[in-house]
Amino acid sequence: MTSTYSDTPLGPTRAEQKRVRDLHGKKGRREHNAFLVEGGKSVAELLASDWPVLAVYASHEAAPDLRAAVARRGLRLIEVSASLLTSLGTYEHNDSAIAIAGQRSWPLKPLRAGELTLALDDIRDPGNLGTILRLADWYGVTQVLCSPTTAEFCNPKVIAASMGSFLRVPVHEVELPAWLAAQREAGATIAGAVLDGESTHRLKAPFAGGVLVIGNESHGLSDAVQQELTRRLTIPRFGQAESLNAGVATAVLLDLWRRG
Amino acid sequence: MTSTYSDTPLGPTRAEQKRVRDLHGKKGRREHNAFLVEGGKSVAELLASDWPVLAVYASHEAAPDLRAAVARRGLRLIEVSASLLTSLGTYEHNDSAIAIAGQRSWPLKPLRAGELTLALDDIRDPGNLGTILRLADWYGVTQVLCSPTTAEFCNPKVIAASMGSFLRVPVHEVELPAWLAAQREAGATIAGAVLDGESTHRLKAPFAGGVLVIGNESHGLSDAVQQELTRRLTIPRFGQAESLNAGVATAVLLDLWRRG
Repeated sequence: MTSTYSDTPLGPTRAEQKRVRDLHGKKGRREHNAFLVEGGKSVAELLASDWPVLAVYASHEAAPDLRAAVARRGLRLIEVSASLLTSLGTYEHNDSAIAIAGQRSWPLKPLRAGELTLALDDIRDPGNLGTILRLADWYGVTQVLCSPTTAEFCNPKVIAASMGSFLRVPVHEVELPAWLAAQREAGATIAGAVLDGESTHRLKAPFAGGVLVIGNESHGLSDAVQQELTRRLTIPRFGQAESLNAGVATAVLLDLWRRG
Repeated sequence: MTSTYSDTPLGPTRAEQKRVRDLHGKKGRREHNAFLVEGGKSVAELLASDWPVLAVYASHEAAPDLRAAVARRGLRLIEVSASLLTSLGTYEHNDSAIAIAGQRSWPLKPLRAGELTLALDDIRDPGNLGTILRLADWYGVTQVLCSPTTAEFCNPKVIAASMGSFLRVPVHEVELPAWLAAQREAGATIAGAVLDGESTHRLKAPFAGGVLVIGNESHGLSDAVQQELTRRLTIPRFGQAESLNAGVATAVLLDLWRRG
């Protein structure tokens, strides 16, 4: 079997460069079952994790720091110029490294007392999804479930905004209404951020975990998801802004959970 | 005196178009003492506020909704094509409206019991600054003080991310160490987010207001600012992410303040 990616130090062929650039788009990522991880720090974290890595490109300057980690993965680091590196990736400028990561799957874990699963109902902005993954990692969330219309987990903007947290937080695509209904019937708490719920500053009972659902940036939670909520939470407003952004609301609610 | 902007319905001259595009950059904004507000919703909010407005450009579709508000300002709405509108502004695509806003000044308010002033020590990312202004508006912060190295308040990305909150939250540029020292000597609480402070989940005393300082995205608070803190606060971590982003940390701390 021949590898799709360089196994010589001569640098990527034109065909290989095309395959790397294919990963800028969702179609290419699906077709190749792979995605880009960009920037020296993220590439180093990827290599140190147990996530599959298919290829690593690095500039002359960044190569020495990565070479040993690449070799431990049984790969050969491909040195390229900073201008080729930039043209291979999605960043405006990249003078360090890009890796091609493969896909991995996580087991969908059952809900357990004291743990929290975060569910995202149509979070469209990749930056928001990345920020939420970073938050899930900070607060020790068990897993993140994404509705099929939520931004694609391996979009380069998600990977960048997650600051490496994508490596540690299990993400699943799930049809939320049916899954939430099953959890609710089994007695789980299904909490959601809504505009007219219980104030998080005067909770009737502690928010001890279960599932927390965060809704779309403009429209909030879908009706089908709202029907499954057992706890409707509202972050009180003291000024005049119309809303909080999705990442910020997630942060305040995860902090509430951990505060107990 | 002749206006710099169109006072005929014939549309902007080339010279006027250049003056609008000058506002994409900091230099042009300083030179003209003006900045861009983009998108129909933000332009409508600007017109409804008491903020100075110098000119309004709108597409044929957006014009009817804005015309009366523009006239109430004693201005004439300039109708332009969506392609010219897009080329005048900084958005990838804009088919609604752009306004030129003038500058206004706010009085720097003295600290009062129960109120909170937010101080930003070198927040570099315009998106973060905009998010923080939106948060300051939601939580009813008295004013936001920016160090001279903080992102420019009237950068188009700040205006976009603030979702209209820039109209309601007084912003000042202040040399923080000297100002904070004076407030501390007068007995104010100066709280700051640090990595090794008092856990916000187990406060020794309530955080009742005063000043909250948020530090740079990568380096946190400067040494000079840290020396003025009377309260060192830390948001506890439960997982493995290295840090929280500046907007998210601000949200959690403002919620803590309002929780009392």
